[in-house]
Amino acid sequence: MNRRILVVGGVAAGASAATKARRTDEQAEIIVFERGEYVSFANCGLPYYVAQEIVNRDSLILVTPERFKRRHNIDVRIHHEVIAINRAERTVAVRNVKSGATSVERYDALVLAPGAKAIIPDMPMAGAPNVFTMRTIPDMDRVDDFIRAANPRRAAVIGAGYIGLEVAEALMERGIRVTVIEKLNQVLLPLDADMAAVVSEHLRESGVELFLGDGVKSLEGDSGNAHAPGNARTPVSRIVLESGQLVPADLVIMAIGVRPDVALASAAGLALGPAGAIAVNARMQTSDPHIWAAGDAVESTHLVTGRPVWMALAGPANKQGRVAGANAAGGNMRFSGVLGTSIVRFNKLAAAATGLNERTARQAGYDIERALIHANHHAGYYPDARLIAVKVIYERHTGRLLGAQVVGEDGVDKRIDVLATAIAGHMTVDDLTELDLAYAPPFGSARDPVIVAGFVAQSQISGAVEPITSSELHRMLAEKQPLQLIDVRTRGEYREKHIPGSRLIPIDELRDRLSEVDPDRPVVIYCRIGLRGYLASRILRQHGYQVRNLAGGIRSWGFETIEGDAEGLRVQGSAAHGVRSLRLPAEVGLR
Amino acid sequence: MNRRILVVGGVAAGASAATKARRTDEQAEIIVFERGEYVSFANCGLPYYVAQEIVNRDSLILVTPERFKRRHNIDVRIHHEVIAINRAERTVAVRNVKSGATSVERYDALVLAPGAKAIIPDMPMAGAPNVFTMRTIPDMDRVDDFIRAANPRRAAVIGAGYIGLEVAEALMERGIRVTVIEKLNQVLLPLDADMAAVVSEHLRESGVELFLGDGVKSLEGDSGNAHAPGNARTPVSRIVLESGQLVPADLVIMAIGVRPDVALASAAGLALGPAGAIAVNARMQTSDPHIWAAGDAVESTHLVTGRPVWMALAGPANKQGRVAGANAAGGNMRFSGVLGTSIVRFNKLAAAATGLNERTARQAGYDIERALIHANHHAGYYPDARLIAVKVIYERHTGRLLGAQVVGEDGVDKRIDVLATAIAGHMTVDDLTELDLAYAPPFGSARDPVIVAGFVAQSQISGAVEPITSSELHRMLAEKQPLQLIDVRTRGEYREKHIPGSRLIPIDELRDRLSEVDPDRPVVIYCRIGLRGYLASRILRQHGYQVRNLAGGIRSWGFETIEGDAEGLRVQGSAAHGVRSLRLPAEVGLR
Repeated sequence: MNRRILVVGGVAAGASAATKARRTDEQAEIIVFERGEYVSFANCGLPYYVAQEIVNRDSLILVTPERFKRRHNIDVRIHHEVIAINRAERTVAVRNVKSGATSVERYDALVLAPGAKAIIPDMPMAGAPNVFTMRTIPDMDRVDDFIRAANPRRAAVIGAGYIGLEVAEALMERGIRVTVIEKLNQVLLPLDADMAAVVSEHLRESGVELFLGDGVKSLEGDSGNAHAPGNARTPVSRIVLESGQLVPADLVIMAIGVRPDVALASAAGLALGPAGAIAVNARMQTSDPHIWAAGDAVESTHLVTGRPVWMALAGPANKQGRVAGANAAGGNMRFSGVLGTSIVRFNKLAAAATGLNERTARQAGYDIERALIHANHHAGYYPDARLIAVKVIYERHTGRLLGAQVVGEDGVDKRIDVLATAIAGHMTVDDLTELDLAYAPPFGSARDPVIVAGFVAQSQISGAVEPITSSELHRMLAEKQPLQLIDVRTRGEYREKHIPGSRLIPIDELRDRLSEVDPDRPVVIYCRIGLRGYLASRILRQHGYQVRNLAGGIRSWGFETIEGDAEGLRVQGSAAHGVRSLRLPAEVGLR
Repeated sequence: MNRRILVVGGVAAGASAATKARRTDEQAEIIVFERGEYVSFANCGLPYYVAQEIVNRDSLILVTPERFKRRHNIDVRIHHEVIAINRAERTVAVRNVKSGATSVERYDALVLAPGAKAIIPDMPMAGAPNVFTMRTIPDMDRVDDFIRAANPRRAAVIGAGYIGLEVAEALMERGIRVTVIEKLNQVLLPLDADMAAVVSEHLRESGVELFLGDGVKSLEGDSGNAHAPGNARTPVSRIVLESGQLVPADLVIMAIGVRPDVALASAAGLALGPAGAIAVNARMQTSDPHIWAAGDAVESTHLVTGRPVWMALAGPANKQGRVAGANAAGGNMRFSGVLGTSIVRFNKLAAAATGLNERTARQAGYDIERALIHANHHAGYYPDARLIAVKVIYERHTGRLLGAQVVGEDGVDKRIDVLATAIAGHMTVDDLTELDLAYAPPFGSARDPVIVAGFVAQSQISGAVEPITSSELHRMLAEKQPLQLIDVRTRGEYREKHIPGSRLIPIDELRDRLSEVDPDRPVVIYCRIGLRGYLASRILRQHGYQVRNLAGGIRSWGFETIEGDAEGLRVQGSAAHGVRSLRLPAEVGLR
């Protein structure tokens, strides 16, 4: 008898699993149950449709049920929810969500790809008619319809993760003023606070009102509204933050995050992992050998730590689905794990991360060091070169690459992908210095930013230069430690802005003015991006000075916040404090 | 006494060596001898200045002698040529090329970075006043001056390598009609013929007259010219090709290639490698332990084969210089080797290669297979998605990645850099399928082209699909082998163009029309890019058919040439033959 494969969920992982199962076993009977109306849609494209960058709605629906049937001989049943698994019998109970009718379906192999659900906070008015999420095509349609019908002027996006920023950009494209509210004291949790601060600054420069370190206390309707507050039809008209601040809004997007949809798996007694998602082995097999799982509902192995993690990302979901589908159909494929590589664009800026950041690396027990550099995304002499910031996190004594972050206008995706590949290849920062990357003036430099990051890390490991982060320097200055802060840029650069308390000795004069530097007090050097500072460090160190170089130069001085922000993500004080602590260095600390 | 380090040559490798030596030893005396007028100039930027894309000539001069002195305390002597090395005495003889005066300089460590020289064919009129190379700033100035003064209308570029194509583009930007002449039967030797053919087609579409497989027989002046031919001041007015074809030209660029400048090293008895460049160990040390060498004059270890190769590329030159400089100053750094990663842009198209190609992999003794795919450079549903072609060459039985090539309009640099990193990390094609690359609609896809290439290779290795190259199919059709050629696209696509002799069975009808396929004859399937062909292969194979899938689909049908072109690079017949053999598939073979 032919193998009968049932797939629960028909979006990224489910669709991949079903089609791979078909390619593996032409004879199998394959049925996909999808509780929603759409299968195989481009989840990641939704904000760009709202932005009207993508204008063809149909293009977001990658494969229709009809095509699944015609091309892959796969039976797709939309509006069908699998409500229970009987593992002993190898059957599932399925409910037609339109008719309410239920049926029982037998399986030889079951693939679970239920995905993740947008988190809706449990608070009054969270279900108000102008409060939306952005996870499905109907979500997108509702937001688009609302904008057309109600012509909102002010929107609040709650949550400053990837989706939050993409939706914020989209709403601005539609001419709406946007406030972004984030309970943590930084945007984009995969980034470290220093790199995230670049994005925050860009958000503000772009006209976003950004609240960091401030949560939503309550949603309020207009008391003058015809509907009384508490009536389900009353729209939200303002948001009260935990700080007491009021944010007026006639459109609210909940972009707090998603959580794995494990109800079905959990009820069936399948093992969950430490992060609360479905536990699978490298073959994407659950604790029941006849049941496979893939996508946003499962845990994966982190390729750096080797430990289970839960991450909801489209790339891994597709790959996992392919592996689960092959194995469900009798194949033998493996999925090694994830790095959590991710990228987001806001306006002109792109921000990306892969592997561990400082926080997750420390949590995992690594003794870390980091290199932060700024370098042109292509040859500096070729038009439109832009500085991008590359940060690599590595194990201090081995130089093993643990994670990386890149922020900039151009070439960010390339560098994060190269770094993700390097981490997957178990490379060290030494290996980065030797990467043979393509160079022609429109595309790169003889010394690519990734290679420069490797150079800096290598110099740090060899002891040729000792870096100091902005946050550490902030702290030392605040504590009035007896350091000599020397700016080695030009007079013109110094006049324009410099760190208070610093003294100017241009790099080209340093050798002749060594007598001005006190050999008995520690020296901190800075320049624009760290390069001249490195040269100055080498000169001073070889003359016996104890010297550190500001990582990333004055360009990174505004990046970092007071010490502790990179460590403790929850803000202790008020929102206003959180916001000020991030803005202070950029606005006040330079002059 | 302070260490005395002499550096011969002050461009990429020499400048890197000198500055790294300074950072390593602040006390050393460091002198750079440069026979030309410029040190540390952006060699790779020269064509873009001719194109007037780069307008600031000074930006091409990265570091002046004055800055070397001020910032790095390095003594740069331009117009000084080192003419002999006395290894026993550890001295060099230096000639001032302006005054003719010579002197002798002592060294503790000597770094040779003499670079490579443009090859000028030994033929009459190669020194004519309208014949140029493009290697140095004065070369560039001469071309630019000539264009301004003589207003040439037709240019011939001899050599279709990277520099040849960049200069061809530049000249077209200046409004000059360009003919490119290449003795080999393909452009861009680092690419395989199939991928190079895409570039050739684009050159022709862009208005370049391209002769492939045709060498230059002679340069001729205008007999009606006031100067008699043979007079050194007589300009070239036409080129006679080996085929007899005449190419009129009032500007000629020699872009045949470069050769390592080993005269000094060779005369001093330093060991050369098998490719004729200076032999060095991983510390960039020559056969004399006091002499180091780096850049375009040295051989490197190929990171795939482990064998010595000679490649003149800026990225490795910089890295080698850094290592040589550190070691010359008492440090201990290593340079592992090169992959020859390179990229060129012509007009809208970018073409890139890394590692081995089919030819060099076979020469090195590998049993290879390749996967050729076309995939969107970012999500297909996001605006302006463009197909790029990715080809990976891998060891048949291990799946080890040996080399890769990428051609397309956008995102080419990213993919080649990811692939170069993967090769450096000793990855297999299986590893490619698991790369965790960044995905957001403007930047990539859930299934990046690199990952798709891995998928295809993986399916080939597992036997799930058996590919056939265009050239092999061409041959089989020409030999009238009894194959069934089936087009699985739509009726509309088939009507627009198809391969002669093919039969249409749209993929969505294949399962119902299996009876139309003869089980006793081999089947070749094709579609647009290979994906539907893969699905069809799986269906047929599981029904017991012997089936192969055209790699890259009909989109690659025009890429490849008649069998043998990918193997033997010299064309046997006339130029016209060479050209026709490349154009035939695209123009005649499709209908």
